[in-house]
Order: sequence, then C-alpha cells, then structure tokens
Amino acid sequence: MIGERVDRAPGPADFAEPPTPADRARWLDADRIDRPERLARLRARFAAVGVDTYFGTRSEHSRYLTGFVLGDGEDRVSGSSGWFLIGADETIVCADSRYRIQAGRQASDARIEPVYGDLDARWVELVDGIGARRIAVEAGAVSHATWTRLAAAGSAELVPVEGWIEADRAIKTAAELERIGAACAVADRALAALLPEIRVGATERELALRLEWSIRTGGADGLAFDVACLAGPEAALPHGSPGDRPILAGEVLLFDFGAKVDGYRSDMTRTLFVGEPSARDLAVYRIVAEAQASAIAGVEAAVRAGGPLPSGRAVDRMARDVIVREGHGEHFGHGTGHGIGLATHELPHLGLRATDEPLPSPTVFSVEPGIYLDGQTGVRIEDLLAVDVEAGRVESLTRFPKGILVVGF
Amino acid sequence: MIGERVDRAPGPADFAEPPTPADRARWLDADRIDRPERLARLRARFAAVGVDTYFGTRSEHSRYLTGFVLGDGEDRVSGSSGWFLIGADETIVCADSRYRIQAGRQASDARIEPVYGDLDARWVELVDGIGARRIAVEAGAVSHATWTRLAAAGSAELVPVEGWIEADRAIKTAAELERIGAACAVADRALAALLPEIRVGATERELALRLEWSIRTGGADGLAFDVACLAGPEAALPHGSPGDRPILAGEVLLFDFGAKVDGYRSDMTRTLFVGEPSARDLAVYRIVAEAQASAIAGVEAAVRAGGPLPSGRAVDRMARDVIVREGHGEHFGHGTGHGIGLATHELPHLGLRATDEPLPSPTVFSVEPGIYLDGQTGVRIEDLLAVDVEAGRVESLTRFPKGILVVGF
Repeated sequence: MIGERVDRAPGPADFAEPPTPADRARWLDADRIDRPERLARLRARFAAVGVDTYFGTRSEHSRYLTGFVLGDGEDRVSGSSGWFLIGADETIVCADSRYRIQAGRQASDARIEPVYGDLDARWVELVDGIGARRIAVEAGAVSHATWTRLAAAGSAELVPVEGWIEADRAIKTAAELERIGAACAVADRALAALLPEIRVGATERELALRLEWSIRTGGADGLAFDVACLAGPEAALPHGSPGDRPILAGEVLLFDFGAKVDGYRSDMTRTLFVGEPSARDLAVYRIVAEAQASAIAGVEAAVRAGGPLPSGRAVDRMARDVIVREGHGEHFGHGTGHGIGLATHELPHLGLRATDEPLPSPTVFSVEPGIYLDGQTGVRIEDLLAVDVEAGRVESLTRFPKGILVVGF
Repeated sequence: MIGERVDRAPGPADFAEPPTPADRARWLDADRIDRPERLARLRARFAAVGVDTYFGTRSEHSRYLTGFVLGDGEDRVSGSSGWFLIGADETIVCADSRYRIQAGRQASDARIEPVYGDLDARWVELVDGIGARRIAVEAGAVSHATWTRLAAAGSAELVPVEGWIEADRAIKTAAELERIGAACAVADRALAALLPEIRVGATERELALRLEWSIRTGGADGLAFDVACLAGPEAALPHGSPGDRPILAGEVLLFDFGAKVDGYRSDMTRTLFVGEPSARDLAVYRIVAEAQASAIAGVEAAVRAGGPLPSGRAVDRMARDVIVREGHGEHFGHGTGHGIGLATHELPHLGLRATDEPLPSPTVFSVEPGIYLDGQTGVRIEDLLAVDVEAGRVESLTRFPKGILVVGF
C-alpha cells in the first residue's frame, strides 16, 4: 500500500552485491562492441542535413562514441583534450600531452591528434585530413567563441545541430542498464548502512559524508553528484546543500544521492522521518507517494498494452494532477523526471515543457514528484524506472523501500 | 638545498589549523564588501566596447559577481539558474524554482528572475527591464546555440567578449589569498596524516580515498578536483586516475590534489618514494626540483627589484630551460603553471603559449614542472606561490616539504 509504514528497516544485505571485476570486464567489452553501432547511428544522420563529419566537445559524448574518459569536472582543465571529429570513415580524438597515453589506450579505434590551445590553428589540417566539407557541430556545447574561431579558420562549413547524440543515448542497451542498476544497488546498500547512524542531533553534513563514504567504498567509482541531506525546513530547497545545524526530532530528513559505476549513474531520493512524524508531514508524504505511484502506474499500463509509451509531458501530468488536486500545485515547481546514464540528467525529459512524443524504449528515467513548503518542510520520492516496451518490462532499479520509515530513536 | 632528503617526515601538527567559523564569517563579509567593487570594475570595461550590460553564464563568475553559489558540476543540471545580467545599475540572476530561495539568500543585492528552459522567451522582457541596448556576452562560455537563440530573440545587440572577469579574478584580495592558504593547509595536513598509511602493496585507489577523506573531514568544503595518486610508471600520465594495482617497492608515488575552502581551491603535487629510490628516479627528481627552484627564484628576484614581474612565458622558460638542458625537454609536455582561485585553473597562465605581459599582482599561481618517462616513471613538484610586488611578498602557500621523502617501510 502506498504511504504505509515500513515495518522493518532494511539492511545492506537486502540489496544486490557490488559489481565484480568480471562485471567490469564484461561492460568494457560491451562498450567496445557497441561503439561501431553508435558511430553508424550518428553517421546515419549525416545525409539529412548534408554533412560528412561531426564535431563534438561534450565529455559524455566523447566517452560514448570514442571510449575516451574524462573524470567529472575534468573538462574544466582538459582544454580541447577529448574533443572529437567523426568523419565518414575515421574518428579523431584531440589530446594534449597530459592525455596522450590515456587516449591511445581508451580510444584505441581513433586517431589521437596532439592539440593544445590551438585547435583553430590545426583545424584546416585536421578537417582536410578527415575529408570534411560540411561539419555538423554540437551547438549546445561548443562555445560561441570556439564556433567563431573554427568558422573563421575556414576549409569546411559548420552546421549547427543539437540533440543527436542525446537522442541516441536515451535508448539504453542491456549493458548500460546493468551498470545503472549496479549503481542503484550500491546506493541502496549505502543508505541502509547509514540508518543506524541517524539520530537527533546529528548534522546533515555528517550524515551526507558518511553516506558518501559508504558509496565510495562500497563498489562505486564515485558519486553521481553531491549528496543532498536536508532536514526539516531545509528539505524545502530542492537543491540545497547539507549544513551544520543539528537535526531535530520530528523533522523530515531528505536524501537525494546517487552512485557512479563504470561511468553510469544512479539517482534516488528518500524522505525519512526522524522520530514521530507530524500529521502535516505525513499528509504531504502520502500525496507525493500517490503522485509517484500514479505516474508509474501510467507507464506500466502503457507497457502492458504493448505501447506506445506516454510522452514525458503526459507522465509529468499524471504525477502533477494528484498534487494539484490536493492543493499543492504551486509547491511542486520542478519536472517529474529525467533520463540518466553517463550524465545525471539526460533525455528523456519528463515535465511541463517536455514534448508530446512517446518516451523512447528501452530507456531509464527518474520519477520524482515533490512538495516543498517554504520554511516548513519538503518531501520528494524518487526512483529510477527501467522501461522496455518490447520486453514488457517496467522495473524500479532503485530498491530501497519507500514507505514511511521512522528513524533516529 | 634543492633535492636533499627530508630528515623528518612531517605530521599534521606541522601545518596551520583548519579554518574556524569566525574565519568563514569574515570571508562572507569580505565578499559582500568586495562585490560592489567587482561590479564597478566590470562596468568600467563597458565604454571601450560600447556596451551597457554584461551577460554571463559561468558559475564561478556568478559567484564572484553576484554571490550565487552552485556546487561543482551542478551547472550540468541547473539549466540557466545562476546565469546573470549586469546592467548599469542592476543585477539580475536567473533561478528556477529549485534555486529560488537559495538565490534570494545568496545574491541578496540582485533581482532574482524565475527562468526555466525559456531564457530566450523571457529575454526581451529582461533585457528591456534592465535597459540594455548592447550586451557584452561571455563568448567563451555561452554555447553557440544559446547565442543564436538570444540573438534571434532580438531587442539588444550581442557583442562577444572574452577574458574580462578572468582578468579581474586573477588579481586576488587578501581575503581570497587567505582562503587559498587555508585550503593549502588542509591539504598539507591531510598528506602528512596519510604518510604512515603508505606501504608497499597498498593501492593507489585506497590511498587516494584516504587522502580525500582526511581533506573532507579536515576543514575543507570538498576537493578542488579528484585526487591523483599514481605509482611507478603510472606517474608518467600527468592526468591519470588511481588504479587498483598494488604499489611496489622502489616506485615513485605521485600525489596531485587540492582542497576547497569557502569556494577557493588549493593544488599541490608531491612525488614521494616508496622504499629506496632508484638512481634514475633520484636524478629525475633533482632536475625537476631545480627547474621549479629556478622559476621561483626568477619571481623572487623580480619582486625584490620592485617589479615588474616576469611574464607567464618567461617563468615557464626559467623552469623549462633546466629540463631542456638536462635532455628532458620532450618529457615535459605541459605548462609550468596556472592561476587558481574559485576555479582550479584560471589566469594567469604560465606556459609556452602564455603572453609576454608581466604577471599580475597580487596574484597566486602554481609552479609545477614535471618529467614523464613513458612506461617508466614520472616526477612533478607543484607549489602555489602568492606574489605581491607592492608588499614585496613571494610566499609558498603549500608548505609540505619537497625534499626527497622516502616512505612506506
């Protein structure tokens, strides 16, 4: 039943074991095998806009298409290392001396070109070498300054395109879903391990750090994003940061966090109750739980019917209608969900401004309605749903119970 | 003496204490007091290019000019939240519902405007409201797609500019240098605390995680960037990631890491020796140490002479000449240093492609020559130098000893 109490607090052993070296080797193989198909899908888009080459700079796209990996935030210091050109027959990955060896290992099917701050100076040579005349450029990621310099360097015409690789990445292979599932399990175990540590007087920051430590030592490569741990009125800030104020009895305690396994991310929100919940918080919790259940049920019904899936806008509406009906429409300011994979937020988008196109399949997205009462309290419940119409599958990759869980005493 | 053995391994108590709440309160005040001056410096640039407004999207710039803070990597999910317009009299900060409360608290002198995915739809209204006719746009950060949409939205003309705020941020106030120094001390203490844990058979990943934990629980808000811990031949990858291979006796062990304190970052590299060093590694170490000392001595001489400082190119040459003279020119592929502050890499740049302009003052930059022998070994030594010509100051903010330090037995 939605919004019931959880009768037994979960422990780490209730969730899947961390990934093994054999899992990781299998995923590496899967990526190597999938990469030519990914390139073929990209090249299949060339004719429609009359281009012969693609130029990209986003680090997730580079990893997806070439195998070259930058750590989170590393693109701030890597210059043009990892930027790539994909022609009709060949892939070029730029790498300065710091990244040369790594790029050769990881992007073993690509030609690695030494490029420093001087991509515009080398542009004509690279473009001519790959036989490019009209180049599709990832306009949502390439800065206007870089665009201007490359256009001025000449040789090939630049054609702005957006969303190509994003659309391809929204459709997930089994090996991708496995990794997201593995990241979810690491996160589930970590939150379960944290439960006995939660008590009145602990601080958000302490708990966030302990949770992170569990994730980082529990099979993840890292966090998907900084842990949000927000108590009481702070939970009304959907993207707040953990603070040093001791947690009080009777407050909600919201965790929004995720793990990263082999580059793939998880994302889950649980709102717990530290000591006996107030009637207000319970009422809000039940509305959010019902909103989430309503959206999930809508997806399940579509899959049972053999498709098509509802649109991201329609799924958003299913959750939002419940919240609006209960008078909290203005307290739910964000979208209902987002795709996830190599990036924490990727396509598909589920929200008021999403398209009316059916959601893609197979895919994975979050379902995360929330209600935020300024200065009082906030509740959000977030799960990741793996959906495959053809296989008749709708499965929550996040497994931590989401009933009312009272902790801290 | 350069390249001598360190006779006593340092302990955490050899370095400054972590920052106190009083320090943090003082820094918050300093930022509030400095912000109008920062805005005035920006506006003083308007006349030369005939603009009346500035539009920026970089999160460090937003923090610097408006006070609005995004966590590391948060700009990947924050959409246009934090993007800002600075007109002749007014500042606008965009924030969607997730960031509204936070933006109101942090950017208390700005007008907070609710903007979702629809900045281009609201552009004319915002631009007219702030009285903008010609807007300087941060062309190195704004994507070409955003540029095109805002230009098409009309009303004001867009003028691409680059490097304005970067140049201002290169010059550091005392309160900024204090925070970088505090971050350095947290990092120094953390490495000192790690020394007894280093032994043959430990893995790079274990040591990196322990070091990170010390930093995160030792007074930092977070890491400046992911810890690099690289042993033996892996140290030849200047931006490698820690792996699971056990460390062998006789290998170098390179740590490149930094802490973040109140948004300001540190960056230090130390190359230690696990067990008795080889003659090859010692020889390489001494060359790198001499190269670093040569660059630092050049800066000190200029400050003693009352300025001007050498250029970033000249300081790079001072270090590089030593390495080239010893026959390792091709094994030192990166620049000698970079400025640091709210970003890990910022102006000034010290390298082969740096300008011939004298370095700014007061400022802070890294001096970090290295030698990398593919498949064999790598050595880098990196310190942060605070330099103030007027005050006659050249001071290493990183204090961890940099003689030959043998650990792990």
